[in-house]
Amino acid sequence: MKKKVGIIMGSDSDLPVVEKAIQVLKDYDVPFEVHVYSAHRTPVEAREFAVSARDNGFGVIIAAAGMAAHLAGAMAAGTTLPVIGIPVKSKTLDGIDALLSTVQMPTGMPVATVAIDGAANAAMLSVQILAVTDTELAEKLDAARAAGAAKVLAKSRAVEETYNY
Amino acid sequence: MKKKVGIIMGSDSDLPVVEKAIQVLKDYDVPFEVHVYSAHRTPVEAREFAVSARDNGFGVIIAAAGMAAHLAGAMAAGTTLPVIGIPVKSKTLDGIDALLSTVQMPTGMPVATVAIDGAANAAMLSVQILAVTDTELAEKLDAARAAGAAKVLAKSRAVEETYNY
Amino acid sequence: MKKKVGIIMGSDSDLPVVEKAIQVLKDYDVPFEVHVYSAHRTPVEAREFAVSARDNGFGVIIAAAGMAAHLAGAMAAGTTLPVIGIPVKSKTLDGIDALLSTVQMPTGMPVATVAIDGAANAAMLSVQILAVTDTELAEKLDAARAAGAAKVLAKSRAVEETYNY
Amino acid sequence: MKKKVGIIMGSDSDLPVVEKAIQVLKDYDVPFEVHVYSAHRTPVEAREFAVSARDNGFGVIIAAAGMAAHLAGAMAAGTTLPVIGIPVKSKTLDGIDALLSTVQMPTGMPVATVAIDGAANAAMLSVQILAVTDTELAEKLDAARAAGAAKVLAKSRAVEETYNY
Amino acid sequence: MKKKVGIIMGSDSDLPVVEKAIQVLKDYDVPFEVHVYSAHRTPVEAREFAVSARDNGFGVIIAAAGMAAHLAGAMAAGTTLPVIGIPVKSKTLDGIDALLSTVQMPTGMPVATVAIDGAANAAMLSVQILAVTDTELAEKLDAARAAGAAKVLAKSRAVEETYNY
Amino acid sequence: MKKKVGIIMGSDSDLPVVEKAIQVLKDYDVPFEVHVYSAHRTPVEAREFAVSARDNGFGVIIAAAGMAAHLAGAMAAGTTLPVIGIPVKSKTLDGIDALLSTVQMPTGMPVATVAIDGAANAAMLSVQILAVTDTELAEKLDAARAAGAAKVLAKSRAVEETYNY
Amino acid sequence: MKKKVGIIMGSDSDLPVVEKAIQVLKDYDVPFEVHVYSAHRTPVEAREFAVSARDNGFGVIIAAAGMAAHLAGAMAAGTTLPVIGIPVKSKTLDGIDALLSTVQMPTGMPVATVAIDGAANAAMLSVQILAVTDTELAEKLDAARAAGAAKVLAKSRAVEETYNY
Amino acid sequence: MKKKVGIIMGSDSDLPVVEKAIQVLKDYDVPFEVHVYSAHRTPVEAREFAVSARDNGFGVIIAAAGMAAHLAGAMAAGTTLPVIGIPVKSKTLDGIDALLSTVQMPTGMPVATVAIDGAANAAMLSVQILAVTDTELAEKLDAARAAGAAKVLAKSRAVEETYNY
Repeated sequence: MKKKVGIIMGSDSDLPVVEKAIQVLKDYDVPFEVHVYSAHRTPVEAREFAVSARDNGFGVIIAAAGMAAHLAGAMAAGTTLPVIGIPVKSKTLDGIDALLSTVQMPTGMPVATVAIDGAANAAMLSVQILAVTDTELAEKLDAARAAGAAKVLAKSRAVEETYNY
Repeated sequence: MKKKVGIIMGSDSDLPVVEKAIQVLKDYDVPFEVHVYSAHRTPVEAREFAVSARDNGFGVIIAAAGMAAHLAGAMAAGTTLPVIGIPVKSKTLDGIDALLSTVQMPTGMPVATVAIDGAANAAMLSVQILAVTDTELAEKLDAARAAGAAKVLAKSRAVEETYNY
Repeated sequence: MKKKVGIIMGSDSDLPVVEKAIQVLKDYDVPFEVHVYSAHRTPVEAREFAVSARDNGFGVIIAAAGMAAHLAGAMAAGTTLPVIGIPVKSKTLDGIDALLSTVQMPTGMPVATVAIDGAANAAMLSVQILAVTDTELAEKLDAARAAGAAKVLAKSRAVEETYNY
Repeated sequence: MKKKVGIIMGSDSDLPVVEKAIQVLKDYDVPFEVHVYSAHRTPVEAREFAVSARDNGFGVIIAAAGMAAHLAGAMAAGTTLPVIGIPVKSKTLDGIDALLSTVQMPTGMPVATVAIDGAANAAMLSVQILAVTDTELAEKLDAARAAGAAKVLAKSRAVEETYNY
Repeated sequence: MKKKVGIIMGSDSDLPVVEKAIQVLKDYDVPFEVHVYSAHRTPVEAREFAVSARDNGFGVIIAAAGMAAHLAGAMAAGTTLPVIGIPVKSKTLDGIDALLSTVQMPTGMPVATVAIDGAANAAMLSVQILAVTDTELAEKLDAARAAGAAKVLAKSRAVEETYNY
Repeated sequence: MKKKVGIIMGSDSDLPVVEKAIQVLKDYDVPFEVHVYSAHRTPVEAREFAVSARDNGFGVIIAAAGMAAHLAGAMAAGTTLPVIGIPVKSKTLDGIDALLSTVQMPTGMPVATVAIDGAANAAMLSVQILAVTDTELAEKLDAARAAGAAKVLAKSRAVEETYNY
Repeated sequence: MKKKVGIIMGSDSDLPVVEKAIQVLKDYDVPFEVHVYSAHRTPVEAREFAVSARDNGFGVIIAAAGMAAHLAGAMAAGTTLPVIGIPVKSKTLDGIDALLSTVQMPTGMPVATVAIDGAANAAMLSVQILAVTDTELAEKLDAARAAGAAKVLAKSRAVEETYNY
Repeated sequence: MKKKVGIIMGSDSDLPVVEKAIQVLKDYDVPFEVHVYSAHRTPVEAREFAVSARDNGFGVIIAAAGMAAHLAGAMAAGTTLPVIGIPVKSKTLDGIDALLSTVQMPTGMPVATVAIDGAANAAMLSVQILAVTDTELAEKLDAARAAGAAKVLAKSRAVEETYNY
């Protein structure tokens, strides 16, 4: 049975960022669950999710949070599944607070951190992790890469036609 | 009965910083407990401490941690006692990671953050909090202020004698 | 008699930030006073407020200021009551100037610093400080926490219904 | 057959950092290969490694580099295997250059970034990724977590005995 | 035959920035080519361009990219022609990520970095490089300098007339 | 005869910032001249202004520039009159580039730096410098201070009436 | 009678930095006084000094402080004499906290800020301010400039002889 | 006749950094001159050098300076030759001040900026610029690249033999 991806966000205000992750997982037909659990407001539920995630069929957890972003770390503290952290940009400091709060984890508790607001990449990384032992998924990823490259080259040709002389 | 101060550090490597807090509490004869609880390595014990702190006679909690410093936030998530955060400088980034991870807390979960490695001030702040309703303690604090001012003025006279001409 | 919270702002341009603190204090039915005192423009009045605050029935002081934000430090210099600092974001530097000017206090003069523009948390922290010896207030805080958690979980259910499949 | 972890460093001057990753992989008995490939000095070999990594039995790639750290990104560009980036601190800027060069990847090319000089966590994360479908490895990780927690608690007891009074 | 300038951008979303470079090259009647090649999405084409650039009549390469901006470095890795890097500001971090990713190159692989979004200067610098051995071009540059100075002085006179009294 | 203040800006795009300085000088009836001289585009004129400033009756020079803001330093290099630097915020980096380029001057070449976009304060400081030996100007400054304090206190009363209860 | 320079430091630990300022004032034979007054520990004495400085024969005040460096601002709040701020580097954050706390002053309260630990320049600037109306002092400053230039050129010749070939 | 490279440093304290540039130019047998000219202390000589550099047989200018590093910009203001800037790390701020002061140049005045303390790369870039029209020099550069790659691969083999198992 296919492993699920758990997408946890610290607040539903993170949804506009997180929706890009949801779309990627749909594109790859990877099953997922989305929850709003806060490391601070609902620490018990957040921890319960993490602790039972492997048994509940999850393969990867994605956690999105802003400011002093502890959610990914709280997930990492509760499971040895790979945890991917999305630092979310807030109203001040341009996301650097969330980035440092997510990436600078102590030894033994890694969080796989992606770019600020990098939700699409978080989902992509979760698919790559599941694809380590899933040849079909790996092929989809490679095909998407090829398509992405073709798209860039098509854009290059358009630009070349417009500007070169 | 006097309220205790709980001093929690994320790792015993934080002891050289934390010892300054211990000394201040001893100076003010404020009872305290010191524990090593990690938000990531021992989240259950950390939370248990926070959740039961008020019932166990604590009035304030001080939490010291470095890097992606979630400990103070984890304390704050478990209790409505005032939680004071000490951002600890680590090997990289000069403490700015711990500062932002400690101070940029979401609404509803304040952490009273002091300066990077500011353990003495964390203890001082905990004494000030206990002194809000403890006249004797408040008088001690005021006396220490006066003594501190006198010390600065004595230094000023020494400097004046050396340098003015 | 209940201790009051003093809310001091450096300029009335800080009001949009400070109003969130006022609302929280009203919600908890904690008495408060609001003043505009500048550490630089009205240092005498600012200091007078701080020096006499304990005698005037205050239990906590909240100070909000931007840029080279000295107001919280000026309050801390005048009283041994707990002083909470709100760093206010200005037109440049995204609030990092106010944050460092507020939090990096010298030994002996702590300022309990909250997040940039974190006025609601400043008020929440002041309530928590008053609640150390006020069981009724502590119960209100705990109830609000429970309500906050329930709200997050309700949002989680809404998100789950929309996105899980 | 067990998937290998590829550890690539941009320069052999990164070895003191990378050795912590090597040790973790040995502890978990996970097969690995170590190479010095530079995104800039040996881009062809670096790319060849990445492009053929899946076929050569690798499951995860760890890339360590400092300054304008492009190595992890170059690996990510050549494979859809999960790539873990270790930003290495150099003589100036305290590692923030390497962190931003590693984590701020464009959409479609995620790099799972760990803390500055966080080589042990990079290896730990690679083990967690392999353990998604390897129950035995997952059990080892969980056991190590339990042992880590016990160690913290033992340290806590030592600290408590020394300092509490 | 006149050497060409190659302008490479990592994404066609960089066009609004890059167009300023195109305009400068047109002004100086320097031949150029524009391409969209991504260090990550089309690494093979990007490298091919760099490797064959000298033989294809290029004298300088300009590379524009944002976030973890590896494009200029990838160009530099493929050729010993001078490579000029334009760090492009993205949605977060105000361009500091692109600046550090572009300028902090390892020994042996210089990238001539200009200001964030400094596309006009990148083109100007490429003209200056070609003018080292092209007297006519050098004279055009000197004439433009003189014209630029005259323009500033004219503006000064306008300001003086408005404001001095 | 009264010393003049020279206000130099690097580009007429700095006028919206500089106009605040002009207004302050008019308020204090201090004679001034405004010029657009660029450290880079018109270095000769900029230097000529600085070198002859003392002989031409200037007492202070104010220089406003953004990005790699060399203008104040160029003024300082040409005269031993006090030079005040206004770092101007540009489109990227929020003014931190201009601040560091203006304030971090080498030994022997001080630039009196004010806040980012702090043109009013630059003018105020120039008046303060002229007032060191001008009792009448000093009295005007003191009167303005008193008026400013009264204004803050009036605002405080307005706020108190609205919010205290 | 010659105006004095007041040098105030927040702590005698700032003396190693401040001594460079003392030396410069001695070199120029400018009378000065040195005091240790803390904006936080001895705010009354600090303010008294500022308020009475003009009447006591001071022409300029130099204030040196680290961390949340409020001292220069406190001086500025108490006098309309020019106040020069020296941001002092502390154990963390490399002086950026002191720089922002010193330079980012609100409108109406300028602090003439010099480089981090730039005590020699603070003194130099104070001499320049006094020299606005003191021809003899201005001539000394100009002579020192000429001597400084000669010294650089002598060093240049030494370097040229060693390295050119 | 071969074009010379001019190496200008703002202070002879920059020599330990600059010597790496000198060595590279010797390795490539490119003629050069070294001078100590300060943008602030000897602005006339600095400018004279820049203005006459093209006529004096220079093809490229390298300028090294720290703190508010204006030297490269001053060179760029005086010539339309390509100017390469080396930001030099000073005692505070880890070189970020010099980097921003060097790279954030205004439109029309590019400085080709290399990494902080990146003197070897500055020299390498100057050789690359001269090699645009010098086939022999280009071949040397390509040969050095090949040798550099071989060296990395040899190191890789050494590491592989030590660590792989």
